[in-house]
Amino acid sequence: MLSEEGFIKLLITTPQTFRLPEPLSLDCGKVLKEVDIRYETAGTLSPQADNAILIAHALSGNAHVCGRYSENDPKPGWWDDMVGPGKAIDTDRYFVICSNVLGSCAGSTGPRSIDPDTGEPYNLNFPVITIRDMVRAQKHLVQSLGVEKLLSVVGGSMGGMQALEWAINYPDMVNSVIPIATTSQLSPQSIAFDWVGREAIKNDPRWNFGNYSPEQVPEGGLATARMLAHITYLSDESMSRKFGRELQDTESYSFAFQRDFAVESYLEHQGRRFVELFDANSYFYITRALDYFDMARRSGGDLAKTFASAKAAFLVVSFSSDWLFPTAESRKIVHALLKNRLNVSFCEIKSDYGHDAFLLEVDALGRMIRDFLRNRLEVQRG
Amino acid sequence: MLSEEGFIKLLITTPQTFRLPEPLSLDCGKVLKEVDIRYETAGTLSPQADNAILIAHALSGNAHVCGRYSENDPKPGWWDDMVGPGKAIDTDRYFVICSNVLGSCAGSTGPRSIDPDTGEPYNLNFPVITIRDMVRAQKHLVQSLGVEKLLSVVGGSMGGMQALEWAINYPDMVNSVIPIATTSQLSPQSIAFDWVGREAIKNDPRWNFGNYSPEQVPEGGLATARMLAHITYLSDESMSRKFGRELQDTESYSFAFQRDFAVESYLEHQGRRFVELFDANSYFYITRALDYFDMARRSGGDLAKTFASAKAAFLVVSFSSDWLFPTAESRKIVHALLKNRLNVSFCEIKSDYGHDAFLLEVDALGRMIRDFLRNRLEVQRG
Repeated sequence: MLSEEGFIKLLITTPQTFRLPEPLSLDCGKVLKEVDIRYETAGTLSPQADNAILIAHALSGNAHVCGRYSENDPKPGWWDDMVGPGKAIDTDRYFVICSNVLGSCAGSTGPRSIDPDTGEPYNLNFPVITIRDMVRAQKHLVQSLGVEKLLSVVGGSMGGMQALEWAINYPDMVNSVIPIATTSQLSPQSIAFDWVGREAIKNDPRWNFGNYSPEQVPEGGLATARMLAHITYLSDESMSRKFGRELQDTESYSFAFQRDFAVESYLEHQGRRFVELFDANSYFYITRALDYFDMARRSGGDLAKTFASAKAAFLVVSFSSDWLFPTAESRKIVHALLKNRLNVSFCEIKSDYGHDAFLLEVDALGRMIRDFLRNRLEVQRG
Repeated sequence: MLSEEGFIKLLITTPQTFRLPEPLSLDCGKVLKEVDIRYETAGTLSPQADNAILIAHALSGNAHVCGRYSENDPKPGWWDDMVGPGKAIDTDRYFVICSNVLGSCAGSTGPRSIDPDTGEPYNLNFPVITIRDMVRAQKHLVQSLGVEKLLSVVGGSMGGMQALEWAINYPDMVNSVIPIATTSQLSPQSIAFDWVGREAIKNDPRWNFGNYSPEQVPEGGLATARMLAHITYLSDESMSRKFGRELQDTESYSFAFQRDFAVESYLEHQGRRFVELFDANSYFYITRALDYFDMARRSGGDLAKTFASAKAAFLVVSFSSDWLFPTAESRKIVHALLKNRLNVSFCEIKSDYGHDAFLLEVDALGRMIRDFLRNRLEVQRG
């Protein structure tokens, strides 16, 4: 990104850790005594504290949404195309907050954290958490930063679920929410994929019911779970265009079980990369939080009733080739919001990228988010 | 099925084994010295030997397509709704042959068979086979039964691929073929799912690179692979209708990782049932045969050219909610056949059942097959 003077303007971010001021009561009925939340911020909070945007990440994400950790850091944050100086979510204009979700493994308290009661990692003694529990922890963080009302909560996939939870649980704390490529309840097909992913981890003897040492993690099982999930993030079309039936490193079929096809090589790479970054027990907890996500359930199946408490303006975005959380799911959300006479914008972006489009369709999605946020800030400032 | 006299007419079938008269040369370049093919027949071959129908099974199928093994046998063959006295594929009228495919584990030679050279199971020393290799073995069987020309080759899914191979490899031996819910080449998405399924088996330490004892089979890995495949056989709609987010054996979320949802329970059941019937190494070989299936490849990508040798009449059937082998794949086949001025009937049956519809939509599919076969027999008899 060039600055006005034509120099490359580097955004440097620094991870921080927030200790919740009090124990966290969870949906399962249990209480977590000590909760740390890893977070990063970018941009400056306005004197009126009215320009804060919370970005909620997806399953495998973390707090490092934008910028770099140093001038020589080769890899920017996971949504750096969207968030930064002059970008759609403009850190010259907004104060951006992103935190690693509760239950994850990138600095926030999760199943591999030390249980203060035992001095040992929780592992499967960690309580099963929900998307709402993640948002409960975020609320404490946001308040600690001096923000009483967020200009927006933005998130794709599981991040979109968190955005929806913000709208109904803390209606006075959000001016707007932008749920992208998401759903109000996990479908049985997605529950099934999650189940199979966890089964793949269970079959890895190194998993050992969650009690693995850092030197002996269930890499094989976790990589398999990730490869499976990755198929659901792409579309049939994008896989055909990207890989087709191309062979890789071989001229003809090997007539063996090693990888022959480019798509196999790609999956292998994705699996290998994931196990370096992610934790198997966190995979259990976060997929279970997804399985349990069902907003209509708390109102006897009536989604419109669930949104009765919401006050925010909504920008709902889906992608045409997303078969994990298809457009029909976004439409359900939109209909429920409209029944409550809420301010809703909705767009289905035509894209071949499948569910991953929320990370890839930066231009179309960015324009929409940029305009929506400007408008919300104007409205808020009257 | 009631007979004309109003009695229940039991069809009793008996599995038989055919030893190929000569070694079998395979696409990979290797030769299998001894090949046994398990098969069953039902009905009677006409004096002119013009009423024989070969039924080709799908991945997990076997030779027991119809009937029962005894009067008290509780479980009929896998397509008994479709095949039997008075049924769509009418064993009072046709001579039905069904054989277990090469590489499988239900009586035909496969990776768990004894290698005559070593006296030990082949395991991963078994040569990698193709769909065409399966058909090569079937051809010997059909000829041994005194059939020089089949009235039809019928099959769904992988069975449909075999039907297509029959049409181009033995054009003078088939009057017609009925490929159902199938494709002319496996998509990268399907290759990806197969890869993940095999990875799940590999992660099971009992698999041991294919060298497992019958007492220590990789049940966990194979069940996981099957559960994954099973998701691809159903449609999102059919899963939503059949299971929704219903809980099973629990009133509310357990906040644990045991099965809570009906769909999880269903998958568990499917996985458990499969490991009782199927073999992990066969799963490797048959999924690899599927991966390698690409009819256009042998004509430089031109599917129409691949079908240039075909002479049969075709009935091509797809199902609207099949996302594994969607209707577009059947259309590709139909276009290639039409370019060769072949006699083609095509129908997409509206169904919510997904890929499994070929086993479930018995009425609609049965009517179509019944009429087509009658017509083919008339044409053949002049």
